[in-house]
Amino acid sequence: MKKAKHNFYPVILAGGRGTRFWPLSRKRRAKQLLALDGTQTMIQQTVHRVQTLAPPSQFWIITNGDCCGEIYKQLPRLPKKQVIAEPIGRNTAPAIGLAAFILLRKDPDAVLGLFPSDQVIRDRDAFRKVLKQGIEIAASGENIVVLGIKPNRPETGYGYIESGDFAANGAQRVRCFAEKPNAEKAAEFLLAGNFFWNSGMFLWSARTLTNALREHLPQTATILEKIAATYGTNKFAGILRKLYPKCENISIDYAVLEPRSAKGAQASNIYCLPTDFGWNDLGSWTALHEHHTSKTTPTDGNLIASDGIFTLHAEGNYIHAPKKFVAVIGVKDLVIVQTEDALLITTRARSQDVGKVVKHLDEKKLRKLV
Amino acid sequence: MKKAKHNFYPVILAGGRGTRFWPLSRKRRAKQLLALDGTQTMIQQTVHRVQTLAPPSQFWIITNGDCCGEIYKQLPRLPKKQVIAEPIGRNTAPAIGLAAFILLRKDPDAVLGLFPSDQVIRDRDAFRKVLKQGIEIAASGENIVVLGIKPNRPETGYGYIESGDFAANGAQRVRCFAEKPNAEKAAEFLLAGNFFWNSGMFLWSARTLTNALREHLPQTATILEKIAATYGTNKFAGILRKLYPKCENISIDYAVLEPRSAKGAQASNIYCLPTDFGWNDLGSWTALHEHHTSKTTPTDGNLIASDGIFTLHAEGNYIHAPKKFVAVIGVKDLVIVQTEDALLITTRARSQDVGKVVKHLDEKKLRKLV
Repeated sequence: MKKAKHNFYPVILAGGRGTRFWPLSRKRRAKQLLALDGTQTMIQQTVHRVQTLAPPSQFWIITNGDCCGEIYKQLPRLPKKQVIAEPIGRNTAPAIGLAAFILLRKDPDAVLGLFPSDQVIRDRDAFRKVLKQGIEIAASGENIVVLGIKPNRPETGYGYIESGDFAANGAQRVRCFAEKPNAEKAAEFLLAGNFFWNSGMFLWSARTLTNALREHLPQTATILEKIAATYGTNKFAGILRKLYPKCENISIDYAVLEPRSAKGAQASNIYCLPTDFGWNDLGSWTALHEHHTSKTTPTDGNLIASDGIFTLHAEGNYIHAPKKFVAVIGVKDLVIVQTEDALLITTRARSQDVGKVVKHLDEKKLRKLV
Repeated sequence: MKKAKHNFYPVILAGGRGTRFWPLSRKRRAKQLLALDGTQTMIQQTVHRVQTLAPPSQFWIITNGDCCGEIYKQLPRLPKKQVIAEPIGRNTAPAIGLAAFILLRKDPDAVLGLFPSDQVIRDRDAFRKVLKQGIEIAASGENIVVLGIKPNRPETGYGYIESGDFAANGAQRVRCFAEKPNAEKAAEFLLAGNFFWNSGMFLWSARTLTNALREHLPQTATILEKIAATYGTNKFAGILRKLYPKCENISIDYAVLEPRSAKGAQASNIYCLPTDFGWNDLGSWTALHEHHTSKTTPTDGNLIASDGIFTLHAEGNYIHAPKKFVAVIGVKDLVIVQTEDALLITTRARSQDVGKVVKHLDEKKLRKLV
């Protein structure tokens, strides 16, 4: 374990906006910077649950310019120069790739743990146990490890990993990555038992990752290598700004994992560690409501954050109205979120559409509200 | 008409709280003091629509101590000493009676127009025309005139007036007053054609009114006469505070009109002027929503007062959230009202229950919120 710890570099992807959490989430206060679950923000939780596996000096964060200031504030122990702001969002492949090329130059034996910054995990001990196992697998050879989540419902909102035989290293070989399924397919996946949700958490060495990028995304790999070569010099910021936008706008799944898995489960060296540590990606207000009520099981299913409450014939509502006295009469399954300048009124069933509000506000250039 | 104008005294009843308009309505900012319809408050509208019939010096307002200050502010032209604060609410009979006994001493030919302070009337000219007719009838003999509203739906929330033959004075004799009916009865009333909503607006001379009180409510009449005798002296406030609470707690309908009408349409001298001037008593958020949408007929039935709006699959909602950008997705027929310190969430069907919130707040002694 000692060695794994020395070479383990958590890379946290924090470039998203999380527009489905509008009006709480804003450009400069994206989902990962909100304390949606408890007192710590999502990104603080992400750091804290792996901090026993790596010192602060080994954490890297890839984010955007709007979020940098808040990240410095929320994570004061992390080196500022390891918080890298993309000049423009290019999806996950270039973000991950940049970290990999930089780390390869610093530590040829680096193992990267890639973590989205906006998920919750209930059982941190179980999570760290799986992680340690994954780090060892990733450190030994050209292996790619993905954490799969055991599904508990026929979810259509996630990508799935189809796993096959167990390998000698204790993980299951990945047969293929499946796109978000329709309801019928999702039900099949659930029954089959060897399909897992793609958590977006990966472990691989900098060497494996950079080689994979050179193979599957050669132009972008060349660009990223050039940028990485200037890291730590005063040219870095300028080169990043100039070259990064030329990278392909593509996810690591599309760019590397899917073509790689097409080589077959034996040749691809992609492994899945199926896990069950109370994972939730909090994809919407509804997911947040379910996450909380599954913990607290209030009898009426209302979850109300306010300064005083009166309810009458009200069930299953998620209401966020901090300094207000809230009275709720005769309504069911609503999602109501209020901030200083905005009020969202929708239903649990429609909370996926909240991103459309932000799209509208972007179009209307109502910048104060996004 | 000149004579009528000289002796006409509008008496505005402004003692109610209007708790169904919480959280906008509060003890010191009761329904009648809110601008629910347009820029004028309800009580300002009430005064303004009769001000061509009487000078400001002839207006009287019966209210409570909580509302006095705001009434002075909203109606600066009215004499402050004619804004009388009941030390305790005793329903309409004592309130109206006190005004009648005071006015009888000032002007034996006074004709009182009794007006609730929280109604809207769309066609003010039609209203004033009826009023003038009513004042003449009330001025000539022991007549009581009530303004009846032609029903346009089988409303179960109002009392009804059953009218009979036309009298020589052009009004219809009142057969009886009917309590709030059930749905079946209300439908019958609508079909019958001679049933009108009881608007709560009455016209009668001070002499008729005081005589009627002496007959039907003798103890209370004696008390009121004693209080009225001190009006204009420095004893008035003390006597009012001491004696007024001893009055019976009863409405003018129960105390006088119903027993009087039991004498029969000929003997009672109660007349109804059926009217159709776009009356609405704005009994709830839902009534307010209907009042507005009936004027503006927005295609989606949403009525949203806010600083910016985004709607998607939203219909028939009433939303009051002044300085907020409001996003409404996938909800129907909701009533959402937000103030500095409170947020009400209910449906158009349940908005009658809003008073229960205030009851709860009263019980919990959450004084800041009531």
